[in-house]
Amino acid sequence: MASGADLIAQFAAITGEQHALTDTALIAPYLRDWRGAYTGASRLVLRPGSIAEVSAILALAQDTRTHIVPQGGNTGLVGGSIPDESGNAVIVSMSRMASIRALDPVGNTVVVEAGCTLQTLREAALAADRLFPLALASGGTCQIGGNLATNAGGIAALSHGVARDLCLGLEVVLPGGAVINGLRTLKKDNRGYDLKNLFIGSEGTLGIITAASLKLAPKPKGRALTWIGVASPAAAMALFHRLHSDAGSALTAFELCSARAVDFAVRHGGFRAPLAGRHEWWVLAERISAYSVEEAETALGSSVLAAIDDGLAEDAVIAGNGAQALAFMGLREAMSDAQKPEGLSIKHDISVPVAAIAEFIARAEPLVELAAPGARVVCFGHMGDGNLHFNVSQPKGGDAAAFKARSGEVSAAVHALVAELGGSFSAEHGIGRMKRELLASTHDPASLALMRTLKAAIDPYGIMNPGKVL
Amino acid sequence: MASGADLIAQFAAITGEQHALTDTALIAPYLRDWRGAYTGASRLVLRPGSIAEVSAILALAQDTRTHIVPQGGNTGLVGGSIPDESGNAVIVSMSRMASIRALDPVGNTVVVEAGCTLQTLREAALAADRLFPLALASGGTCQIGGNLATNAGGIAALSHGVARDLCLGLEVVLPGGAVINGLRTLKKDNRGYDLKNLFIGSEGTLGIITAASLKLAPKPKGRALTWIGVASPAAAMALFHRLHSDAGSALTAFELCSARAVDFAVRHGGFRAPLAGRHEWWVLAERISAYSVEEAETALGSSVLAAIDDGLAEDAVIAGNGAQALAFMGLREAMSDAQKPEGLSIKHDISVPVAAIAEFIARAEPLVELAAPGARVVCFGHMGDGNLHFNVSQPKGGDAAAFKARSGEVSAAVHALVAELGGSFSAEHGIGRMKRELLASTHDPASLALMRTLKAAIDPYGIMNPGKVL
Repeated sequence: MASGADLIAQFAAITGEQHALTDTALIAPYLRDWRGAYTGASRLVLRPGSIAEVSAILALAQDTRTHIVPQGGNTGLVGGSIPDESGNAVIVSMSRMASIRALDPVGNTVVVEAGCTLQTLREAALAADRLFPLALASGGTCQIGGNLATNAGGIAALSHGVARDLCLGLEVVLPGGAVINGLRTLKKDNRGYDLKNLFIGSEGTLGIITAASLKLAPKPKGRALTWIGVASPAAAMALFHRLHSDAGSALTAFELCSARAVDFAVRHGGFRAPLAGRHEWWVLAERISAYSVEEAETALGSSVLAAIDDGLAEDAVIAGNGAQALAFMGLREAMSDAQKPEGLSIKHDISVPVAAIAEFIARAEPLVELAAPGARVVCFGHMGDGNLHFNVSQPKGGDAAAFKARSGEVSAAVHALVAELGGSFSAEHGIGRMKRELLASTHDPASLALMRTLKAAIDPYGIMNPGKVL
Repeated sequence: MASGADLIAQFAAITGEQHALTDTALIAPYLRDWRGAYTGASRLVLRPGSIAEVSAILALAQDTRTHIVPQGGNTGLVGGSIPDESGNAVIVSMSRMASIRALDPVGNTVVVEAGCTLQTLREAALAADRLFPLALASGGTCQIGGNLATNAGGIAALSHGVARDLCLGLEVVLPGGAVINGLRTLKKDNRGYDLKNLFIGSEGTLGIITAASLKLAPKPKGRALTWIGVASPAAAMALFHRLHSDAGSALTAFELCSARAVDFAVRHGGFRAPLAGRHEWWVLAERISAYSVEEAETALGSSVLAAIDDGLAEDAVIAGNGAQALAFMGLREAMSDAQKPEGLSIKHDISVPVAAIAEFIARAEPLVELAAPGARVVCFGHMGDGNLHFNVSQPKGGDAAAFKARSGEVSAAVHALVAELGGSFSAEHGIGRMKRELLASTHDPASLALMRTLKAAIDPYGIMNPGKVL
């Protein structure tokens, strides 16, 4: 194990000493997750610079039964990239393999290494007049390898899909060091079983993604953003149906936010409320145009006006310029952070069928009140995908410890309702360490058994990211 | 094995005698593929009516090591649904499980059983003002289960993706009878490994798909179709880049056809040539609009006119009404059948990166001439997806047997070029029996090894569709 100095030396010889971190202070940032919820231990962080090095690392790891924790930008929310407390695992950071190997604006594809940040990739695409559609608040830090390993979602998934939908092929190193050469830039390829999707969303438990071929889209020539005040989640659903029918795939975001979520972001984020009037619920919608900003604004405006006329919405404002558009999106992106000053909060990353959104919210709020009286639901998220961050902040001025003691009961009630509605307790954040037991205790038994069969077949010694997912 | 009368009786008891076909005349249609290229043998065709029956069949099959060949509409082109000649396999036809279990127009999802035809599903979606985007010439016969098992592609894949991209979840019976309950209608769900994509495209070698939850799209309010004459594949590529940049995801088809492919369809299909003038290459493009037919026509028309002004295209005609649109699409769909009266033909279902289309065509034609002098290349297909049906008809008035003797050499030359360009010898038709050896001899060794590992883990006794894919 990595506790032996000899073994550490063997691993370090693969990357070279300068890319094998053993100093406690240098290792510390790799041991703690972004939110500070998980802290693990390790005596070695490897930073390989080539696929040959990653292959050699996983060959040695399998031979010596050394546990490996792959790590990208370490922005995950479920502890998937953090080692356990034993200190026996070696962390493999992909940050040095960050190049964009090829970008094809005609075929709309890009081949990129795992350690490239999402932001860097998006900027490279824009420079070629293309769009890489994945959009996350953590874009400046998170890495493509991690985006794929966790099947990241985000705001643009409504039209463009999640990370899985944007991937054409993967280069993966398996436990033992074999290299899957799957970097195809083909839109259609039916040569045998689909392997890439097994690794996408497997959170580093089956191998290490070293590079990916991804889809690009033509860069839209215009976009329009609107904040719309609505009376209820049911009204928001009717509004979604209307805007989606009007725009089709040009409707690229449809976010639902409770008044409290907006209030918190205004109070703590320094944003202005979108409209002067009070609305119980808010929708942030984005529409793109292949022609121009004007076309996007006109089309979105006429849809929204008609919706107001028909009683589906109360009031609306369309961003008048680029700065206002940034502020519109910023208000939405600030909602997660804006919960922190309000005290302890319990996060639920849930999805239900889109048609069940209103029923979920109507039934979940009383369940929360029953389990933790006075707790404040802060609900916002990607309604067009059926995905809500149904978070719960502690009672105003209440006792954090008392609230924390209720958190298990709150989550159990929320997740039971999600299950009843055919939903998921992990919409886009994954399983990691946080939801491993929940998965084991609630998921379809035959699906779980098949997942364990696959894990045992691909990683027979259980060296890849142990204690995560399964 | 199914040769035993006792075993046949045990299987028949599961479905009931009336749904267990043993009569030679009744079985015959299940033994021969659509093109007549493959004929197998079997003494029993089971037509289960429920998932419980499918589960019981696969439990008995595993216990008795009976080979199972799942079959949908039997419209495949690579022999994947046809048993071998031994007569030892039981065919399981999914035709009786054909109901649409649920259709949600707000959430844009549908849950449908495997035996439902594509056409029936498309019509049900249209009745709810929704679109199920998969579009195949065999739509009236092919079944959803087969579409997913083969990961079907077709003309609309450019914007909406292939079958894989349209699937949200699967209900699958595994060898041994375990049932994967994966019929989720969620846009986002990260609960553990992705299992559905393992079965999509596995051609019945890992289990039987009994039902699927699928994505729908809002029905576009308008569409416009155009035939465009272009000078060369390189011009078509520049035209594609232009139209795709102009329209984004509203460009829903971009088909490239050689003059010979058009000539054959005109000669044998009773269609008129799109334009009076002669063009070496033709493009069929479709653009949809969320607003109206007029908007679609205006937008497509202005893009095409600008392309002609800029020298990317020679001439064009836009369908003036619905009947003309049907004729435009019919001409394209007739191209495959129109090769038959011209004699023997060799089919190549290839894909390359879109940017390599022109190079592929320029280099492949001389290779064919070298391998089979006088042979006539008939090239058409989904250029926007990099997918061409690069077919080769025998020399005019030539000797079919002599041409057939050259077919191995012709295909080897075409496939070698495809491999050099990073392409695939199976873009959308799958592997089946036809390309099994090609896969084994040319594919990435680590990928093949992993496919075999997965097959052995899920189907340890090799009862599922033996002799296909791997």
